[in-house]
Amino acid sequence: MLGTARPTAVNLRWALDRMVRVAQDTGGGGADLWERLRVEATTIWEEDRAMCRKIGEYGLTILPDGANVLTHCNTGALATGGIGTALAPVYLAHEQGSKVHVYVDETRPLLQGSRLTVWELMHAGIACTLITDGAAGTLMRQAKVDVVLVGADRICANGDFANKIGTYGLAVLARHHGVPFYCAAPWSTVDATLADGDLIPIEQRAASEVTVMAGRAIAPDGAAALNPAFDVTPARYVTGFITDRGVVQPPFGS
Amino acid sequence: MLGTARPTAVNLRWALDRMVRVAQDTGGGGADLWERLRVEATTIWEEDRAMCRKIGEYGLTILPDGANVLTHCNTGALATGGIGTALAPVYLAHEQGSKVHVYVDETRPLLQGSRLTVWELMHAGIACTLITDGAAGTLMRQAKVDVVLVGADRICANGDFANKIGTYGLAVLARHHGVPFYCAAPWSTVDATLADGDLIPIEQRAASEVTVMAGRAIAPDGAAALNPAFDVTPARYVTGFITDRGVVQPPFGS
Repeated sequence: MLGTARPTAVNLRWALDRMVRVAQDTGGGGADLWERLRVEATTIWEEDRAMCRKIGEYGLTILPDGANVLTHCNTGALATGGIGTALAPVYLAHEQGSKVHVYVDETRPLLQGSRLTVWELMHAGIACTLITDGAAGTLMRQAKVDVVLVGADRICANGDFANKIGTYGLAVLARHHGVPFYCAAPWSTVDATLADGDLIPIEQRAASEVTVMAGRAIAPDGAAALNPAFDVTPARYVTGFITDRGVVQPPFGS
Repeated sequence: MLGTARPTAVNLRWALDRMVRVAQDTGGGGADLWERLRVEATTIWEEDRAMCRKIGEYGLTILPDGANVLTHCNTGALATGGIGTALAPVYLAHEQGSKVHVYVDETRPLLQGSRLTVWELMHAGIACTLITDGAAGTLMRQAKVDVVLVGADRICANGDFANKIGTYGLAVLARHHGVPFYCAAPWSTVDATLADGDLIPIEQRAASEVTVMAGRAIAPDGAAALNPAFDVTPARYVTGFITDRGVVQPPFGS
């Protein structure tokens, strides 16, 4: 069930496959099976922490000192086993005493930006400012954004990638304003079996996520709403992919 | 007080000025003054209705049959004395039996799209689909938008115009995807005293409009938020200005 929970994402499926393989390779069952699964899960978690740190270290190389970063959705400590993906360079910059400030897209409809990203950045003592998704363009026009850092749910062989809805619009705006646009993700997010982004399944979620907020209707009864949870950003908009193997360019093999 | 309520907009100020002029020109006061003010207000309302209709008629000339329109904020019957500005061509197309469908940006933070535009379109029996602001880019990439129609709060002599936050991002996305982008507004929205958009005062509104929704906190306590209520779209992004004097191009005199 977990494996189909998020059709757009690929590395949840990857972790589940590892767990299944351990289960299949383990003769017998009971306590022995559970112990091996626990060890595998802990290993995945440790690897995830190390991988986030590597993404952060590679990401630091493209982060200007005193940078104003714009990010979308949540890609930090709340979404990973470590310091995150797109937020990892921000955490490391802060850890090293560099000034860094993050503009956080609220990320409608589920508000992962307001509810999660702002919370964890405040918790870490990192300066951040919440904005509505519609304000990103005008901030770029005012030259207030030095770099856009986003995550990815799935990256195709040609570098097209799926991420939370709104990412594609940011990519176009960044390109238009000459703002570097980086996608940060672990290598396990690469799905080399998909040639390009047109092949990524996009999860369509309930209209009520758009029409209802915090339990209260914010649109008329019966209003039709479209709620694609993700969008696809073609590789040509991406300045570079910050991975645990370095800042890289497509095409990506396995 | 009404005159300073919305510094970015210009035609509220224009209507108030007309009322003040009538008051100043009226000798005496009391019943005679109130009667003249009532007549002037009714005249402004009638003019507004006629003007909306003209905008609609001129707008029809650029609206393809069966068009999928994308709009932002509320520019319809709820915002004007008549059938609106950017929505006026949509109302007339529907009145004439043409098929038309409107994608409505919810328009964070105040959700004028979800709360007002969707309501009035549903009320008029016009097909519409609510989307989050961040979904507009991907819809354009999928060629689902034939034309973008937005309103304006103030139009400068060179054609730069202020409108609800998020309009500028839409303009960039429309340009990038080759989607025609029209600004519809009465001629009274032109402020020929301002040479360009850099001179338009942008109303900064309370952070709580971003951090609180329907009375409930949607961001952590103490979160910093930026809330510019409007943005400026440079004239070069605008395919044409649909006014009560025709579909026109800048520069605009008085």
